[in-house]
Amino acid sequence: MISFKNDYSEGAHPAILQALVDTNNKQQAGYGEDEYSLQAAQLIQQKMNNPRAAVHLVSGGTQANLVFISSVLRPYESVIAATSGHINVHETGAIEATGHKVETVECMDGKVTPADVASIVDVNDPIHMTLPRMVYISNSTELGTHYLKQELVALWNYCKSKNLYLYMDGARLASGLQAGDITFEDLALYTDAFYIGGTKNGALIGEAIVINNPALQENFAFHLKMRGALLAKGRLLGIQFIELFKEDRYMAIGAHMNNMAAILTAGIQQAGFSFFTTSTTNQIFPILPDTVIDTLREKYAFYTWKKLGNGSSAVRLVTSWATTEEMVQLFLNDLPVMTRS
Amino acid sequence: MISFKNDYSEGAHPAILQALVDTNNKQQAGYGEDEYSLQAAQLIQQKMNNPRAAVHLVSGGTQANLVFISSVLRPYESVIAATSGHINVHETGAIEATGHKVETVECMDGKVTPADVASIVDVNDPIHMTLPRMVYISNSTELGTHYLKQELVALWNYCKSKNLYLYMDGARLASGLQAGDITFEDLALYTDAFYIGGTKNGALIGEAIVINNPALQENFAFHLKMRGALLAKGRLLGIQFIELFKEDRYMAIGAHMNNMAAILTAGIQQAGFSFFTTSTTNQIFPILPDTVIDTLREKYAFYTWKKLGNGSSAVRLVTSWATTEEMVQLFLNDLPVMTRS
Amino acid sequence: MISFKNDYSEGAHPAILQALVDTNNKQQAGYGEDEYSLQAAQLIQQKMNNPRAAVHLVSGGTQANLVFISSVLRPYESVIAATSGHINVHETGAIEATGHKVETVECMDGKVTPADVASIVDVNDPIHMTLPRMVYISNSTELGTHYLKQELVALWNYCKSKNLYLYMDGARLASGLQAGDITFEDLALYTDAFYIGGTKNGALIGEAIVINNPALQENFAFHLKMRGALLAKGRLLGIQFIELFKEDRYMAIGAHMNNMAAILTAGIQQAGFSFFTTSTTNQIFPILPDTVIDTLREKYAFYTWKKLGNGSSAVRLVTSWATTEEMVQLFLNDLPVMTRS
Amino acid sequence: MISFKNDYSEGAHPAILQALVDTNNKQQAGYGEDEYSLQAAQLIQQKMNNPRAAVHLVSGGTQANLVFISSVLRPYESVIAATSGHINVHETGAIEATGHKVETVECMDGKVTPADVASIVDVNDPIHMTLPRMVYISNSTELGTHYLKQELVALWNYCKSKNLYLYMDGARLASGLQAGDITFEDLALYTDAFYIGGTKNGALIGEAIVINNPALQENFAFHLKMRGALLAKGRLLGIQFIELFKEDRYMAIGAHMNNMAAILTAGIQQAGFSFFTTSTTNQIFPILPDTVIDTLREKYAFYTWKKLGNGSSAVRLVTSWATTEEMVQLFLNDLPVMTRS
Repeated sequence: MISFKNDYSEGAHPAILQALVDTNNKQQAGYGEDEYSLQAAQLIQQKMNNPRAAVHLVSGGTQANLVFISSVLRPYESVIAATSGHINVHETGAIEATGHKVETVECMDGKVTPADVASIVDVNDPIHMTLPRMVYISNSTELGTHYLKQELVALWNYCKSKNLYLYMDGARLASGLQAGDITFEDLALYTDAFYIGGTKNGALIGEAIVINNPALQENFAFHLKMRGALLAKGRLLGIQFIELFKEDRYMAIGAHMNNMAAILTAGIQQAGFSFFTTSTTNQIFPILPDTVIDTLREKYAFYTWKKLGNGSSAVRLVTSWATTEEMVQLFLNDLPVMTRS
Repeated sequence: MISFKNDYSEGAHPAILQALVDTNNKQQAGYGEDEYSLQAAQLIQQKMNNPRAAVHLVSGGTQANLVFISSVLRPYESVIAATSGHINVHETGAIEATGHKVETVECMDGKVTPADVASIVDVNDPIHMTLPRMVYISNSTELGTHYLKQELVALWNYCKSKNLYLYMDGARLASGLQAGDITFEDLALYTDAFYIGGTKNGALIGEAIVINNPALQENFAFHLKMRGALLAKGRLLGIQFIELFKEDRYMAIGAHMNNMAAILTAGIQQAGFSFFTTSTTNQIFPILPDTVIDTLREKYAFYTWKKLGNGSSAVRLVTSWATTEEMVQLFLNDLPVMTRS
Repeated sequence: MISFKNDYSEGAHPAILQALVDTNNKQQAGYGEDEYSLQAAQLIQQKMNNPRAAVHLVSGGTQANLVFISSVLRPYESVIAATSGHINVHETGAIEATGHKVETVECMDGKVTPADVASIVDVNDPIHMTLPRMVYISNSTELGTHYLKQELVALWNYCKSKNLYLYMDGARLASGLQAGDITFEDLALYTDAFYIGGTKNGALIGEAIVINNPALQENFAFHLKMRGALLAKGRLLGIQFIELFKEDRYMAIGAHMNNMAAILTAGIQQAGFSFFTTSTTNQIFPILPDTVIDTLREKYAFYTWKKLGNGSSAVRLVTSWATTEEMVQLFLNDLPVMTRS
Repeated sequence: MISFKNDYSEGAHPAILQALVDTNNKQQAGYGEDEYSLQAAQLIQQKMNNPRAAVHLVSGGTQANLVFISSVLRPYESVIAATSGHINVHETGAIEATGHKVETVECMDGKVTPADVASIVDVNDPIHMTLPRMVYISNSTELGTHYLKQELVALWNYCKSKNLYLYMDGARLASGLQAGDITFEDLALYTDAFYIGGTKNGALIGEAIVINNPALQENFAFHLKMRGALLAKGRLLGIQFIELFKEDRYMAIGAHMNNMAAILTAGIQQAGFSFFTTSTTNQIFPILPDTVIDTLREKYAFYTWKKLGNGSSAVRLVTSWATTEEMVQLFLNDLPVMTRS
């Protein structure tokens, strides 16, 4: 059985495991003050060309989102997200559990535009409604799409004109950046904060929260500790992000994932099938007949995304740092070729 | 510089790293449903002789405490702890952040007795005060002491007579059990739940929450996800707990730590110094002259626990899975011998 | 200036003020255990023919909603509401502030149907999404509509089949019941809980939370106290609900408000204007030319509900226990008659 | 049966009821924007000689405390209180329910001193402990004692030197101020905020939160609405505080209550009994033989405060705006005279 269910089915990039072995006996300070975490932060700051960015390493994406968002918002403030946004759909109310409403807007392709945000902000009734104070976006999105630089800049400018913070969920940042024209330097300029996903980009575990806006950096470590997100052995996270960033391995992993997905996409198109969304990232959503899906499931694992009700469904195929061209070709070989009527 | 600051200064037991390498390319299900997590749970159930225990693996101790305690208590219910209890002192209000009051009682040696609990329960004024519903204890405690079986059983019986849950924080469980006469089978019988500390007992990261009481098991995974504690790559935790429990390595690590601390204790006593608390676990609290402390700090790292105001202080020395007899002897060699007046 | 802005512009029904004067010097127990609160509870139980209902009096509607909903839901559970529902739009995230997500569904006329609820329940993904556990409805709704008995029964049956609680916000219950065929006895049979609005039905202040489901009654007073909702002088609330329920004054007030609104509706229709929603309750939403609105505002206060963009807007007119036929006639006299083209 | 159980057994001062009757039909804006609430705020500002104070009227004391404290503290910040403080003992964890720890210190007579606060602040361990950010005091205290101006100024100066806010719970402010030398003008100078208790000082209901510190005023109404504390008919509160402050009735009520308690105190002393605390406010704590207590209970209601274990107990007697000299004399007449041995 080969899995295309997600990008966290395997362990970690071998270089990461080797680094864990190499550093194992070195005594280090706890709670994120180890040399490795500090060095990882510096590498990320350099990559962004923003020495004033605050970098905090945590164990998972939902944790990154809930700690950061709750650290910024005052009790009566809310965060705006696409209805398809991870914080709205797949985090079991983690943001609400910290006391904050997620205001949602239906978005094309999972990408939030200034007009989407305006549709909420413009009808706000102060005191009786929550005060929207942050916009949450994912890049790449939950639908496999990604932002272009001009889209990001437009959203940033709108947010600043409305006193809104802009925060990017980078669970799949390597794939999202690799697919588009946004750089880490752009993220320093056009977001208040974002997180760099490690778990879905070749790490064993771990995400790096990057806070550009100095006003949002103060006392952040208290929030981490209070939410159970400050690891005693922060070294585990630091060592991994050094490996991901010391030689641009992070973007290389993104490129590999996207390439594997592109081969899948090309092969599926060639076989005559269409797609539910347009994606050049590591998540693709082909539409396949249910009978084909049933057959493929005997050898491959993947999620059905949406039943389309006409005997076919959109499925989600995800590639990872560990996906090989051989795995991809096996899948394509097992795909029947559609006879066009 | 040799550190006796804590038991999380080094990486992980080599067997754990090897297992991570060996399993790295095996594709697994996410979110705790991987084969390794399931196998780790079985090993722990077997060790306790309680096949009905629910086992959930999380990344840290504060997280284990906040997720479990908030999963059990109704909004108006509180948890009773020693003033020295970790949830009261060193978790940045993590329990309160989930909405619950920690009712505290001053305890001898950090150990909670039925009389301590009664001093809170007996003056409770329903509706106008929170309703105490759980007793939190640590074993070993924050002061290096540990519970004996008869103490645990007495507390358990008292709790059951008062409709209170009994929960044990096992951040340093290996050391605590090894120092006393309580077994894992006893924990199945005389606690509603506890957690098995991995981080401070040779793991890279990770704690195993064990819920004995079936009434507290339902839907626990929702709480994990909502609090950001459900790792996508749960395999990282599962693999480690397999290594800790498949050959009794967990207790062996506890024995090693306690032995190293015992050598330190014997040497310090022999040099003529006394102790702030009586401890046979891996945390000891010798009282040393401040001048001696200053000299030792040039070569050794450790915390000052309490300034005693008479030119001497209690310090905390902690041994770990990686502490060697050589490190201990170096420290003892550098300790001056007190001339008794 | 005459106000049709809302149903809380005036003080209280004169009988209520008289009762406050008459009872003023009688010493009473505090925190809801006074004779008046107990008697009010009995009157409400009798009205519903449900002696086992628990009745708790609080000061306002948002408070009633947040205390009750948060008392029922486990941390990971959510409540389903119409997007137009008061808890979703106009309570400043009060439910989320207690840690719970409000799952929303776009509803026709503000009324929730079984199909609406199913659209959320049927796609639920356990563990990764919140668990829907309650359905919130308002009667009358925020759009002036009301439920019929068959609609309530259908929703109740659906809820029970899906393990969902059904809770009714009765901020405008007198008007809502009076407009339809639902009785207080029906509310005992077909809701788990509801609240009887006093503030908008002739009281100075106060709402009565009525909990039919015995499983939801336990320890409710702890929640009240913890949320700041348990008044020391609960007598203030008890006295008022006695006056509202001892001689069916509550429904009489509802009838009066609806009658005043019906005269307004008839006059506005006669003048040639149409309506944004169909309402026979005390909130009506005529569509008027913006020029007419501007003129009316010189003598009458009311809210613009929605600008329709064609030179006309829907406005909201609300009648209260204190609205007189004279006030209504003055308004109608000042309304120009549309010349139909 | 005559009750000395508390100061909220009766309704309201007759002038308040009359004002409610007189204003009943006047249409007013909702949610605290009515003319009466605005006028009440002005009267309070004038009384304090602080036109920049923000005044918000709410329905009860626990509500005032929880809304204000949670509006100020960042998630990881805590409030320091005496162990006897109302927020620590008798509000069912209301502060913790908003996510904040109450750090407690054992205080003489329920009054917090700079040294008490220092005992917490001086051992704070940032990141791993909550950050103390506010000191909560009650005046008069839960033990009937009151602050002198020099004590308040010393605490204020200490708080400002440590970046702590100072907040006073004024549930019994009339009695507390009347007993000491602190004025409303002092409260403007030496607190960041306080609340003026209405419920226990002759109002039907209601407390006035007064925020002196401009930094704490912003967007406070959002917090009120979110916590269910913003009454639609705010007029009910405004009208009452006008009556309490337009002719210094508030302090006159305090004087009356204290005078009644002073007569009780003198009579009890004359009969040969001693007191548990020294009080010149409206709460006194005589120590009486249990046999005497049993006899008195046949005709008088009051609380036993503490059983002293030697056949006698401290009881609490509370006087109110409605306590008459006749009631007091009846009690004293029924008190046996101790024969000194």
